Amino acid sequence: MASPKKKLQGLVAATITPMTEHGEINFSVIGQYVDYLVEKQGVKNVFVNGTTGEGLSLSISERRQVAEEWVTKGRNKLDQVVIHVGALSLKESQELAKHAAEIGADGIAVIAPFFLKPRNKDDLTEFLKEVAATAPGLPLYYYHIPSLTGVKIRAEELLDGIQEKVPTFRGLKFSDTDLLDFGQCVDQHRQRHFALLFGVDEQLLSALVMGATGAVGSTYNYLGEKTNQMLEAFERKDLSSALNHQFCIQRFINFVVKLGFGVPQTKAVMTLVSGIPMGPPRLPLQRASREFIEKAEAKLKSLDFLCFPGLKNANLEAS
Amino acid sequence: MASPKKKLQGLVAATITPMTEHGEINFSVIGQYVDYLVEKQGVKNVFVNGTTGEGLSLSISERRQVAEEWVTKGRNKLDQVVIHVGALSLKESQELAKHAAEIGADGIAVIAPFFLKPRNKDDLTEFLKEVAATAPGLPLYYYHIPSLTGVKIRAEELLDGIQEKVPTFRGLKFSDTDLLDFGQCVDQHRQRHFALLFGVDEQLLSALVMGATGAVGSTYNYLGEKTNQMLEAFERKDLSSALNHQFCIQRFINFVVKLGFGVPQTKAVMTLVSGIPMGPPRLPLQRASREFIEKAEAKLKSLDFLCFPGLKNANLEAS
Amino acid sequence: MASPKKKLQGLVAATITPMTEHGEINFSVIGQYVDYLVEKQGVKNVFVNGTTGEGLSLSISERRQVAEEWVTKGRNKLDQVVIHVGALSLKESQELAKHAAEIGADGIAVIAPFFLKPRNKDDLTEFLKEVAATAPGLPLYYYHIPSLTGVKIRAEELLDGIQEKVPTFRGLKFSDTDLLDFGQCVDQHRQRHFALLFGVDEQLLSALVMGATGAVGSTYNYLGEKTNQMLEAFERKDLSSALNHQFCIQRFINFVVKLGFGVPQTKAVMTLVSGIPMGPPRLPLQRASREFIEKAEAKLKSLDFLCFPGLKNANLEAS
Amino acid sequence: MASPKKKLQGLVAATITPMTEHGEINFSVIGQYVDYLVEKQGVKNVFVNGTTGEGLSLSISERRQVAEEWVTKGRNKLDQVVIHVGALSLKESQELAKHAAEIGADGIAVIAPFFLKPRNKDDLTEFLKEVAATAPGLPLYYYHIPSLTGVKIRAEELLDGIQEKVPTFRGLKFSDTDLLDFGQCVDQHRQRHFALLFGVDEQLLSALVMGATGAVGSTYNYLGEKTNQMLEAFERKDLSSALNHQFCIQRFINFVVKLGFGVPQTKAVMTLVSGIPMGPPRLPLQRASREFIEKAEAKLKSLDFLCFPGLKNANLEAS
Repeated sequence: MASPKKKLQGLVAATITPMTEHGEINFSVIGQYVDYLVEKQGVKNVFVNGTTGEGLSLSISERRQVAEEWVTKGRNKLDQVVIHVGALSLKESQELAKHAAEIGADGIAVIAPFFLKPRNKDDLTEFLKEVAATAPGLPLYYYHIPSLTGVKIRAEELLDGIQEKVPTFRGLKFSDTDLLDFGQCVDQHRQRHFALLFGVDEQLLSALVMGATGAVGSTYNYLGEKTNQMLEAFERKDLSSALNHQFCIQRFINFVVKLGFGVPQTKAVMTLVSGIPMGPPRLPLQRASREFIEKAEAKLKSLDFLCFPGLKNANLEAS
Repeated sequence: MASPKKKLQGLVAATITPMTEHGEINFSVIGQYVDYLVEKQGVKNVFVNGTTGEGLSLSISERRQVAEEWVTKGRNKLDQVVIHVGALSLKESQELAKHAAEIGADGIAVIAPFFLKPRNKDDLTEFLKEVAATAPGLPLYYYHIPSLTGVKIRAEELLDGIQEKVPTFRGLKFSDTDLLDFGQCVDQHRQRHFALLFGVDEQLLSALVMGATGAVGSTYNYLGEKTNQMLEAFERKDLSSALNHQFCIQRFINFVVKLGFGVPQTKAVMTLVSGIPMGPPRLPLQRASREFIEKAEAKLKSLDFLCFPGLKNANLEAS
Repeated sequence: MASPKKKLQGLVAATITPMTEHGEINFSVIGQYVDYLVEKQGVKNVFVNGTTGEGLSLSISERRQVAEEWVTKGRNKLDQVVIHVGALSLKESQELAKHAAEIGADGIAVIAPFFLKPRNKDDLTEFLKEVAATAPGLPLYYYHIPSLTGVKIRAEELLDGIQEKVPTFRGLKFSDTDLLDFGQCVDQHRQRHFALLFGVDEQLLSALVMGATGAVGSTYNYLGEKTNQMLEAFERKDLSSALNHQFCIQRFINFVVKLGFGVPQTKAVMTLVSGIPMGPPRLPLQRASREFIEKAEAKLKSLDFLCFPGLKNANLEAS
Repeated sequence: MASPKKKLQGLVAATITPMTEHGEINFSVIGQYVDYLVEKQGVKNVFVNGTTGEGLSLSISERRQVAEEWVTKGRNKLDQVVIHVGALSLKESQELAKHAAEIGADGIAVIAPFFLKPRNKDDLTEFLKEVAATAPGLPLYYYHIPSLTGVKIRAEELLDGIQEKVPTFRGLKFSDTDLLDFGQCVDQHRQRHFALLFGVDEQLLSALVMGATGAVGSTYNYLGEKTNQMLEAFERKDLSSALNHQFCIQRFINFVVKLGFGVPQTKAVMTLVSGIPMGPPRLPLQRASREFIEKAEAKLKSLDFLCFPGLKNANLEAS
């Protein structure tokens, strides 16, 4: 059962949803996935059914099953399992939030509706309040990603007074490079002990120096250990080492971004690095090309990121 | 039961979903709404659960109920009832498409997924094909609205060869002002007898001259009669009258657009004009302000658009 | 000498600035160019030093020389020579406006400054007023092109009351597809006899039906005759013929747009069609590729647009 | 005379161009301005005629005079005077670059042309090469500001191989928050000893940790001393102090950004803090409102940023 007192911090993996070759969810590897994160990557927090997890491409029923599997398999192994319950429909978010509370998740995360959008902070707060009301006591995190949602409400303004309206509000995933906004979240609200988690993996160091208390991202699935080394170097004020780690991570991301990098490619890279088959994405996404996989694999090798012993290429049936 | 032969043409109202003051769907007025469209506005086709209908803000279960109600109440009164089944999740679109076929809808409309997006025409076609497969024989219309979805695939390219992949494809709702793209849809594909329905109400005349075969929009709920007069004038080549009708419509839209015009305001205007209470929108949208309603009402009066005799202001409980 | 009474109407060619292979202005062909427009394309109005003419890539001294050459060579041949005097610096616009008046141009056109931008209608009006003050009596046209300038001020609002502030204001080049805004310019301001010239060539028909009084564009350099046929068909209410002409033009534009179509490609196409060497563009633009030229030429032939007898390929030294 | 050996580093003030109440350049205060920067703000490098200096709103003749005045008055006082010579016209950039070399400036900066734009790295490099050729030996800095120019070419790619084409290339002003791109500029090119100057003042700390070698910005005119304290704290690895300084700066910027903050407001704030009258901006910009000035002054006082003893409010004739 979730304890509302412990603060979410450090690295949080935005989990991938493994699928079979036929596009159905492959629940059978989630236990192995949990062990891999904890043992090989040193990552003990997860954020389930978010962008990386194709949460919005799943049906509500599938989202419930995936959430349940992570809570079950993560018990006594993971520190916190946060379920993304954002949806375009308030009713669906509420159903998912209620379910997350029932299964004992440690928190919920919510994206702003991005089709019919909130115009301002008040509209958004009202929406979050209605979601929170169905999961009393469960920590709620706002998922701030203006480039995807088009919702330009500044996080720093949203935080102002939010706990009066949404008592379970506990922080945010800040997926943007506006570090004035992020910095002011830290500066104006530090007494509230919010979790201010940065979500742009390739420049995490820039947010650490600005006061980030943790990070949520897809790369922590396979670069968690490397990133933890950066966090440790930063913690001991060894900025030179921290920067070297950051640059090493950037070289990989910079490389794949130029090839075209999205959820399908993340699934392919995770399969390469972990050896756990993540399968194809769901339509309208298409699986990563064989060319991408070959180039990514070569780059991973050249950067010494491909450390998993039991890698089986057979898991990588690309189109 | 739907006959796949009849072509969708003329005005199609993008229906509003009436709600109670508590934000639940008010099914009780849909019968009255059908009669109003047919009798007062001369509109006999509807597009249900689209943007105007807050389709993506409803739960799947609610979308099914709304669709069913329109099909039932429209029987023998409406010519065609097209159900929008677009969703971010293919599975949900498929469930809704299957349901639309089962209840005897006349067609389905599908928006491109806009969170995890199709990269190109092939991805999008593949997605549409999988939706169509669950509703064999039911006409499918693509809902092209790049400004909302960010999916920039040109309609003219999508149409090229689509019937080989999606045999039930019958046309599109083109909600954009790129009339090169629209014109080439008409020019390149006229032998296919696609329904090429324009979706930018305030400049419909510009698309009529480019070969539009009809129009889908929210204003046809309350300006259908006026727009039909424009269609008739255009039909008889009385361009001067057609333009006068268009300008008259533009004056209203231009006025409300400056005040801020979205779904909540559409609900308020429809309530004003029809006298049927449409209620508030669902969060994160907020109901139209009293100030908007007063200004809109004055404008409607000055343009002589407010012709419903039994208007009851009591239906307009604004915030 | 310009008479301020005659209204600018019909087709206006946005002139190309011919250059030598070394990137200097090739003044020697401008006389031939004037004759070609008048005799072969039936176009008797020009808009000099605009986007197509690379006006903003020329030095102020060059812009003066180009303007002078067009006024001189166009005398007794062209109806109106309008000089674009827009610049990022008010002082430069003023110098060019004063010069245009001195040389006897028939009007000036002005784009909104687009680096440090006007925030609203008042800022923009103030700017236009200061430009106009240096060329008293000379008709001034505003060049509305929000997609390039990022200046989103609605044209319809700008026109409201502008003649009280800028007495020489006579109309605008409207280069946008928002035909609500354009329609309201026509509707609200028709008693002022403004020239409301449409600037999106590939969908001119859609603006004619909305009340456009003419058109300014680059394609009228080489598709002027074809477009005039469309205008004539529209004038006699032969909408079917007008649409066929529009579609024919669209087929060409649609084709080249997909290949990448900008000023360098316009120069290449004009060279192909007119036989007058337009030369390369100025940096940072690069000349059209040989592949583009070959494909464009084949398309022009297939559409029967390549009617100039003395075409010499030697003029087309592409990279 | 410029020595090409010394590397540009530390804080660089993007200078304001002082104007009289009638909008002419007020050369008379530039000497005082130099002294103020050096003595009160500890800033010894300047970047003249950039965005803050309204460089693109001045005529070429004015730009030459302003450049000359800064070089003259800065002699033996400033370390480096870099002249921005960017323009929409290559010819004008070349004239300004040649002039900068003649007057003994220490470097030139160039923005990408942003009306007719370079499509890719090669186009842009070619453009920079032609500018550089007119000022042999003079260090050239690229001004990367994609949000204003729309030129999305990644800086990291531009740097790759640039010195082979543009031998005087020495670095860039990076005005963007994409710290993956910036980090890779540092990581991939550190052996070249480029000046990698960050241009988003309000989050400078995030770039320092990523390896920035200096910063160019408008706030260093009046917050130079405060920012230097941040640089020193960062240098001695006192990250907590550095962050406190950054937050203090952010509180001011965050405040004025919400009020609307551009060049006119920068002029007003600099007048408030330095006591040197900066005057109004040039059209289409309008001077800061009295309301803005009063609020900014109160905020400056509350943050203890308003330290200049001889402040005269008479200098602040706002509209």
